[in-house]
Amino acid sequence: MSKVLVLAGDGIGPEIVREAVKVLDVAKQKFALDVELDEALVGGAAVDAENDPLPQTTLEKARAADAILFGSIGGPKWDAIERDKRPERGLLRLRSTLGLFANLRPAILFPQLADASSLKPEVVSGLDILIVRELTGGIYFGQPRGIKEENGERVGFNTYVYTESEMRRIAKVAFELAMKRDKRVLSVDKANVLEVTELWKEVVTEEAKAYPEIELSHMYVDNAAMQLVRAPKQFDVIVTGNLFGDILSDEAAMLTGSIGMLPSASLDENRKGLYEPCHGSAPDIAGQGIANPLATIMSLAMLMRYSLERGDVADAIEAAVESVLDQGLRTADIYTEGTRKVGTEEMGSAVADAL
Amino acid sequence: MSKVLVLAGDGIGPEIVREAVKVLDVAKQKFALDVELDEALVGGAAVDAENDPLPQTTLEKARAADAILFGSIGGPKWDAIERDKRPERGLLRLRSTLGLFANLRPAILFPQLADASSLKPEVVSGLDILIVRELTGGIYFGQPRGIKEENGERVGFNTYVYTESEMRRIAKVAFELAMKRDKRVLSVDKANVLEVTELWKEVVTEEAKAYPEIELSHMYVDNAAMQLVRAPKQFDVIVTGNLFGDILSDEAAMLTGSIGMLPSASLDENRKGLYEPCHGSAPDIAGQGIANPLATIMSLAMLMRYSLERGDVADAIEAAVESVLDQGLRTADIYTEGTRKVGTEEMGSAVADAL
Ligand SMILES: CC(C)[C@H](C(=O)O)[C@@H](O)C(=O)O
Ligand SMILES: CC(C)[C@H](C(=O)O)[C@@H](O)C(=O)O
Repeated sequence: MSKVLVLAGDGIGPEIVREAVKVLDVAKQKFALDVELDEALVGGAAVDAENDPLPQTTLEKARAADAILFGSIGGPKWDAIERDKRPERGLLRLRSTLGLFANLRPAILFPQLADASSLKPEVVSGLDILIVRELTGGIYFGQPRGIKEENGERVGFNTYVYTESEMRRIAKVAFELAMKRDKRVLSVDKANVLEVTELWKEVVTEEAKAYPEIELSHMYVDNAAMQLVRAPKQFDVIVTGNLFGDILSDEAAMLTGSIGMLPSASLDENRKGLYEPCHGSAPDIAGQGIANPLATIMSLAMLMRYSLERGDVADAIEAAVESVLDQGLRTADIYTEGTRKVGTEEMGSAVADAL
Repeated sequence: MSKVLVLAGDGIGPEIVREAVKVLDVAKQKFALDVELDEALVGGAAVDAENDPLPQTTLEKARAADAILFGSIGGPKWDAIERDKRPERGLLRLRSTLGLFANLRPAILFPQLADASSLKPEVVSGLDILIVRELTGGIYFGQPRGIKEENGERVGFNTYVYTESEMRRIAKVAFELAMKRDKRVLSVDKANVLEVTELWKEVVTEEAKAYPEIELSHMYVDNAAMQLVRAPKQFDVIVTGNLFGDILSDEAAMLTGSIGMLPSASLDENRKGLYEPCHGSAPDIAGQGIANPLATIMSLAMLMRYSLERGDVADAIEAAVESVLDQGLRTADIYTEGTRKVGTEEMGSAVADAL
């Protein structure tokens, strides 16, 4: 039996997760999956209920689970509260405590949605990049950090730090994943300025020796941000640290024009994982029933593939999503003339039916 | 009399700077400018000659100058030498020693080159963003930094640090510049994760009180990287720190599709400045006479505007560039069918003639 913990979170989180669970229920029957579901509070919802964005009970359930299906967190309601209680901190602590160091963020252009991109069709058609972002180290967690008083003024400071072993294990994940794809890995650094990324470049290069079939290249982060705009199809797998990965994965996601479609996985050493859509909690449209549930449903597919090792179920869910797109169903964010606009629930049900 | 120091540097630097000097010579005559030119070595060229990317004599000339016209530095030849001798370090030391804290990077789409962008015409036509990047602080210069041995493995570390006064003075520059534009400033941070940028957001917000006409907004860096791809025309002035500015300004530059056209200015407190093209030293095409000199010529225009306070001369140079584009002249990097391909020298001469 596999245990899946559902953390719906804030904003549109609950409505999109509900649709993914609907799809999961159908998958359980169809594939006779032995999956037990549980749920818990996280983010702003948990702050409201228990004054903590990651309550102890939630953390314990998360530890006990094989995989976590995550909605989204945050919103203006919790912007002004003290730093440690902000919804984001709950997610950061969850990633860190569970050791979810490998963040996989695919940027894929769905042929059915080619028009949605702000880039010219020939630049993005067929786009299929996998960004592998280190998620539990770097400047996100480095110490010392804070705001202090010095010479009569405030000074803000953070520390960008990586150990050799942290770099090695994320490089390895990138190489392993690239072996199942086009065998090309780009490592992104700013080695001409930052010593920590100079070491990154060196360690990734060393680690690559174990993968003679992989074609490894390097790029400065400023150039990578440029090349993603200029010619994104040159990339296969991109591996980088936590902060650069945050920036570049969002840029890459937006190249597809439909961030409402993109899933992500955050894995530990043993393939336990947290799965969440790339998009945020969209407080402006929360509760209206118009949010796009497909990124969360695609995240469920990743959950099946990586944590439950059921690639067959993942394939079936992805095929079901493609088929509702082929039918012309679109939520508002991906709507174009000539297609049929549907709400969150209708989209979720259509995928469940297709499955 | 004004003193301008020419630092041609490496790669295509010397050939593009030569054309800008050609234009400067014509401007001197036409506008009876009292400008004295000098030159010196920097970057790899200086390493080769004096084993130092920023020799003492160069630094002294730079201190004495009112403005510096800079080409480009770096290349594979100097990639393997020790850290302190790398060409980039010469430029970083120059920025820091001269206190050139305000880096102005316009991202403008030339209507004549609208096709060159990888984005759809309606997304970028009329694009006119000014990125104001802090250039002498942040993680580029923060201490401590380095690579150390700890628990039997190597650890790389850098420090992201800003004082309140550093933040205040760059915010002020952004607000002053926005007052002459559309009066909208976006400040980019990662305040939900990094304390240093939490303080940044606070200080910029405080400083904005002195500019009641300015519309100030804030965005996380990951979202900014996304929005630049999705709808770049929403922005007027963007102000941010050294590292985020490095990444976002290159991304924004590439939206125009013609980074060979984009100038930049790096100013101190007293409008002394260093002016350089946004593009790099392009070692692959160096010496072939095909590089685009227009970004350097546009940098000369910025030099006239900011350091020499001759907006009239700047306007004339920019008009001359527009007119050669209107004539259909293009270097290889911006060539499209139906235009006339010219080399570096012919392009420079055409601008000089038009002036
Ligand atoms: C919410 C925030 C802390 C988070 C991050 O920066 O990691 C988000 O942007 C992401 O990419 O998942
Ligand atoms: C050459 C390098 C050190 C430099 C920087 O990162 O500042 C460059 O990328 C730039 O943006 O001028």
